[in-house]
Amino acid sequence: MTGAGRPANSGPRAAARNRTALIAAAREVYSEHGLDAPLSAIARRAGVGQGVLYRHFPDRAAVATAVLEENVRQIEQAAAEDTDLAGVLGVLTWHLTESAAFISILHADGAGSGSAAPAYVPALSRRVERALRGHLPEGHRLAAEPDDLMIAVGMVSGAVTGPTREHRERRAQAAWRLLGVEVGPVRPYGG
Amino acid sequence: MTGAGRPANSGPRAAARNRTALIAAAREVYSEHGLDAPLSAIARRAGVGQGVLYRHFPDRAAVATAVLEENVRQIEQAAAEDTDLAGVLGVLTWHLTESAAFISILHADGAGSGSAAPAYVPALSRRVERALRGHLPEGHRLAAEPDDLMIAVGMVSGAVTGPTREHRERRAQAAWRLLGVEVGPVRPYGG
Repeated sequence: MTGAGRPANSGPRAAARNRTALIAAAREVYSEHGLDAPLSAIARRAGVGQGVLYRHFPDRAAVATAVLEENVRQIEQAAAEDTDLAGVLGVLTWHLTESAAFISILHADGAGSGSAAPAYVPALSRRVERALRGHLPEGHRLAAEPDDLMIAVGMVSGAVTGPTREHRERRAQAAWRLLGVEVGPVRPYGG
Repeated sequence: MTGAGRPANSGPRAAARNRTALIAAAREVYSEHGLDAPLSAIARRAGVGQGVLYRHFPDRAAVATAVLEENVRQIEQAAAEDTDLAGVLGVLTWHLTESAAFISILHADGAGSGSAAPAYVPALSRRVERALRGHLPEGHRLAAEPDDLMIAVGMVSGAVTGPTREHRERRAQAAWRLLGVEVGPVRPYGG
């Protein structure tokens, strides 16, 4: 009821803000309820109407893709700033423990029995690898064979199960310890 | 057309033989085509009619459960005979590379975001753990913390992706190498 014009929360700036809020809300809702959570729960968490959600994301898959894209972007940002591998691995590990869905993108060469990964997934996986590899010191445990780095990431993602975030983070830490790889604070980029 | 009596391939002995053939066929078909493969393909591979398949397994889930059960049984048999952990891990690794479905049972405490593991899965996972733990020497790399053994198994299962069995086996071997754990020949029990 703010008059006959466009509602207060529109315009390009509001649109970008809504999109960011929707992605953050989707990550939280997925983390708590899995990828099958209703889109209405995401809109509600973001504090926008469902119409706004559908304006940004035509369907369920588009929301999930946006979250994965944003996860990868945060790892790239951490890699652009942090100077050591441990710091970047900490951000990667945070995303692993936050979202089971994210894990699937680290199995990008998968095409494994029965797994039907969407087409954009290998590209995201390569971006994660590039972000990490830029910080991999010569002589590092994971630098011996070309595949070792991403095999190790797949291994940690395989360990990250459990009912709560704390449980999953503990298992991720144990996995890095078993690999003999140091990992920095487990936190979101900028968090 | 062997007369008016029961067909040649019936009777309790034939039933047991058919069941064994169906489980072996299902494992192969799942390995090649994933869990969504049609039941008709499994019956065909086993050389029995679909009616025979349905007499043993009321539905799709029953077939998958029987394969998982049989996988675990083979690991238990290897553990009962082999005297070292490496030998049992070789059989475990064979099942990992053979069947992506098997991997999910090793994430039994999962209940992770979005994963809905059937109720029998934790029991199977505990049987795998028991079979391995009986061969874990004191002072072994994976004996330091109570969870380390099955975290390591989860880690290897996380690395086992790829389009072919050979590809998946290479990645599994790399994963055990990164963990510093020796693994015996990757082969089925008795194979």
